[in-house]
Amino acid sequence: MHPFEYCNPTKIIFGEGQIKVAGEQLAAIGMTNVLLVYGKSSIKKNGVYDAVTASMQTANIQWSEWGGVSPNPLRSHTQAGIDLAREKKVNGIFAVGGGSVIDAAKAIALGVPTDEDFWNFYINPAQFTPSKALPVATVLTLPATGSEMNGGTVITDDVSREKHAVINPLLNPCFSILDPKTTVTVPPTYVAYSASDAISHTIESYLTRADGFLPVQDGYAEGVVKAIMKSTERILEDPFDMEARGSMMWAATLAWNFLGSSGVGPWTTPAHMLEHPMSGLYNVPHGAGLAITGPAWMSWESRRRTDRIAAFARNIMGIVEEDDATACKEGIEAFRAWLSKIGNPVSLRECNIQREQIHELARHSEILARAWGVGGEYTTRVITEILELGY
Amino acid sequence: MHPFEYCNPTKIIFGEGQIKVAGEQLAAIGMTNVLLVYGKSSIKKNGVYDAVTASMQTANIQWSEWGGVSPNPLRSHTQAGIDLAREKKVNGIFAVGGGSVIDAAKAIALGVPTDEDFWNFYINPAQFTPSKALPVATVLTLPATGSEMNGGTVITDDVSREKHAVINPLLNPCFSILDPKTTVTVPPTYVAYSASDAISHTIESYLTRADGFLPVQDGYAEGVVKAIMKSTERILEDPFDMEARGSMMWAATLAWNFLGSSGVGPWTTPAHMLEHPMSGLYNVPHGAGLAITGPAWMSWESRRRTDRIAAFARNIMGIVEEDDATACKEGIEAFRAWLSKIGNPVSLRECNIQREQIHELARHSEILARAWGVGGEYTTRVITEILELGY
Repeated sequence: MHPFEYCNPTKIIFGEGQIKVAGEQLAAIGMTNVLLVYGKSSIKKNGVYDAVTASMQTANIQWSEWGGVSPNPLRSHTQAGIDLAREKKVNGIFAVGGGSVIDAAKAIALGVPTDEDFWNFYINPAQFTPSKALPVATVLTLPATGSEMNGGTVITDDVSREKHAVINPLLNPCFSILDPKTTVTVPPTYVAYSASDAISHTIESYLTRADGFLPVQDGYAEGVVKAIMKSTERILEDPFDMEARGSMMWAATLAWNFLGSSGVGPWTTPAHMLEHPMSGLYNVPHGAGLAITGPAWMSWESRRRTDRIAAFARNIMGIVEEDDATACKEGIEAFRAWLSKIGNPVSLRECNIQREQIHELARHSEILARAWGVGGEYTTRVITEILELGY
Repeated sequence: MHPFEYCNPTKIIFGEGQIKVAGEQLAAIGMTNVLLVYGKSSIKKNGVYDAVTASMQTANIQWSEWGGVSPNPLRSHTQAGIDLAREKKVNGIFAVGGGSVIDAAKAIALGVPTDEDFWNFYINPAQFTPSKALPVATVLTLPATGSEMNGGTVITDDVSREKHAVINPLLNPCFSILDPKTTVTVPPTYVAYSASDAISHTIESYLTRADGFLPVQDGYAEGVVKAIMKSTERILEDPFDMEARGSMMWAATLAWNFLGSSGVGPWTTPAHMLEHPMSGLYNVPHGAGLAITGPAWMSWESRRRTDRIAAFARNIMGIVEEDDATACKEGIEAFRAWLSKIGNPVSLRECNIQREQIHELARHSEILARAWGVGGEYTTRVITEILELGY
């Protein structure tokens, strides 16, 4: 095992009907005047908005509203949220939604107490490191990104369409309410994208980790991925299967709270690096993009990390083939078939991205590769080669 | 899944050589004058004492020493530690040792700020609930109990020999340093006891959990137990295998930080309930006792929870038998054989406990059963029946 530090103080409040405690939980941590951040209209249609605001009223929490966060939340919308939060002198940010909403809330929390352009934290982390942030709390309505139990946030620039991330312990939510009932209206397509996203979070470190004896981390990842797969299949069979909705919600949270990857040594996130330009440039849903880049990258990588991809094939996809190279091939095919079966696109073509657009995607990925410290490994040429495997 | 709250703010600092940061970490959380709690002489022999005190000196941490904590730490010794901590006006308790030392440190942390006898928190939790405690930090030297990342403490009364527990979030350590090098001198017998203890922690909830679809929790438990088994086998082959020492350390911590059991609904700890009197009355090492009570209880329980014990047999012990009852039998036998192979006693006789002493053990377990809310299920008659299976 490799050295690590791990600290995750986010309180998880899990259970059907638990959104009703939102107000009292905000009050308990002194968030008395909050910016309520949410997305488009879904929380107003499914009753979540009403339940949360009723709970805040009962607990005498003041709030100002900042709706309209989009998937792949935008820098300009975030900046306007920061301005509103300052004007209203809020003492906390309360996100009610999925990963995009929570990421936007964290960006606002970062931006309020600084005189700098908050975007500096995203594009120039070497020079701009946050030293404070407003507290954030969340009600999760779409399990996928893990943002509810980590310190990460990803924002997209409106003009350049580049997506950048900040990961900082200041941004771990104080509490996150995981109420499976809030996810019952998530439609099948988004169930599929969520599964793809959460699986990708778990296997990035599993597949790219350093060599060595890591049975704790491997067992954790294998358990989480198999739980996501089982839960997703049950949800698609019966959208009202609350056991499966709950299980998916908890699995997706554990998939990206960085506990499972603690101690694996240096690891990278190639599937995410290859995907970000797809959602940034072409608004491909993030999980859908990962369903393309994940298997494509695994096909390319199986020449180098045959050991890890064969482990994935056998211990997660149930491949029994003894030859490693064949096991890799069968495992990747089985994974791609499963992602497709549940409703994901598994090729660029299915997202109406043409072969001639691959170069532009590769150019953007290569910028990320350099920013994420793997520029030497992932050149435009290599990235193009990988994306061709996903065409 | 069942409703739960989970919050675990303990910072884990893992890595070979990390004990050197103890002083600066104490300073960072304002623990400037601490009670250094440790056990018998082992940390003075293996260099841990020297390294920790050198680190405290460098960071200008004042300390007073309270050594001599025994396995199954005693109420009287704890009370004397409380008196010393008050006299020295410490602002934190720093435990350097295994689970017993950490448990004693937590008891002292509970006792210092109260006017009550600290023992009330242990024997009368309905009436006495702690509202404050001094902060606790730890350097772990024996992976087994999980006390380094949870809010639990178990103390034994000198006279009645009863063991009682407090579990309270106030007692989660602020930080715990997990330095695998500190465990390299743990002898094979204690490696065996530790494995038995950590496995028991993981499977108590796995085997007694409510019915239902719980793939996240099942996968977590299966991964942790298999990691403990693999690591233990490697340590016993080569005590200097640092990969295995590290893996065991992290697995044992994850085994009892209550993350894996979150959401499983009501569960019980029968193996621990049956074991406590063995260590309390006869000073049987806790893990050794669990190697007896665990399989004995599983044999008895397999008539009722055939489903769970068959799952254990197949998914952890690798039994391929299709018939559930036979799978249970084979799984329990394989588990007992493994515990014995690594060096645990697996019968009361091996601990020199005679058949006529079973009644006294049962009487004590039955007191615990009532205190832990399972008195109706575990009567003296039932407990005697189970212990006979472990004779």
